[in-house]
Amino acid sequence: DQLPNKTAKMDSSKTTDAASSQSKPEHINKAIKKDVDKVVDKYDIEEVTGQCDAASNKTVSYCRCWKSKKFPLCDGSHNTWNKETGDNVGPLVLTKKQ
Amino acid sequence: DQLPNKTAKMDSSKTTDAASSQSKPEHINKAIKKDVDKVVDKYDIEEVTGQCDAASNKTVSYCRCWKSKKFPLCDGSHNTWNKETGDNVGPLVLTKKQ
Ligand code: FES
Ligand code: FES
Repeated sequence: DQLPNKTAKMDSSKTTDAASSQSKPEHINKAIKKDVDKVVDKYDIEEVTGQCDAASNKTVSYCRCWKSKKFPLCDGSHNTWNKETGDNVGPLVLTKKQ
Repeated sequence: DQLPNKTAKMDSSKTTDAASSQSKPEHINKAIKKDVDKVVDKYDIEEVTGQCDAASNKTVSYCRCWKSKKFPLCDGSHNTWNKETGDNVGPLVLTKKQ
């Protein structure tokens, strides 16, 4: 009832952290809609065309780094992420011919 | 010239791995076009409309998990990634009204 073995293990400073060395890869998405199983954003082409028309450069950029405060739109946060981590991610850009 | 301190450190099995605990976050993109500073994919709306027209479901899905073998298109690899890591990423889906 005194569980001597478990106590001994917990007290040992030499125990290696097996859980840590076997940890899964980090999530790509750390913050967006973590309450849903899969974040899928669906638009009709007409809707995207309207978004392009409303923009001065007739362009709409969609985030692929999962860091944007305007997700699913890109807000440039990929640049901070790339600079901090050395990664090279960027948006999907859709344009309407003028 | 014999650098005794450095040798002592290297031989010590008790030295903690400071570099590891201070490491940067993992790259989101581990494989796609790692020779370019930023992977941006740009399409004209007409081009996307053509892609939708060519598809039986009038739909085209763009990868946001950076794991697709058909990048920038989604090939379903996000499902494997989500299952293995517990993440919840998914594609941007564009459709054309029929
Ligand atoms: S903010 Fe995510 S790709 Fe630009
Ligand atoms: S394969 Fe990347 S989102 Fe589907």
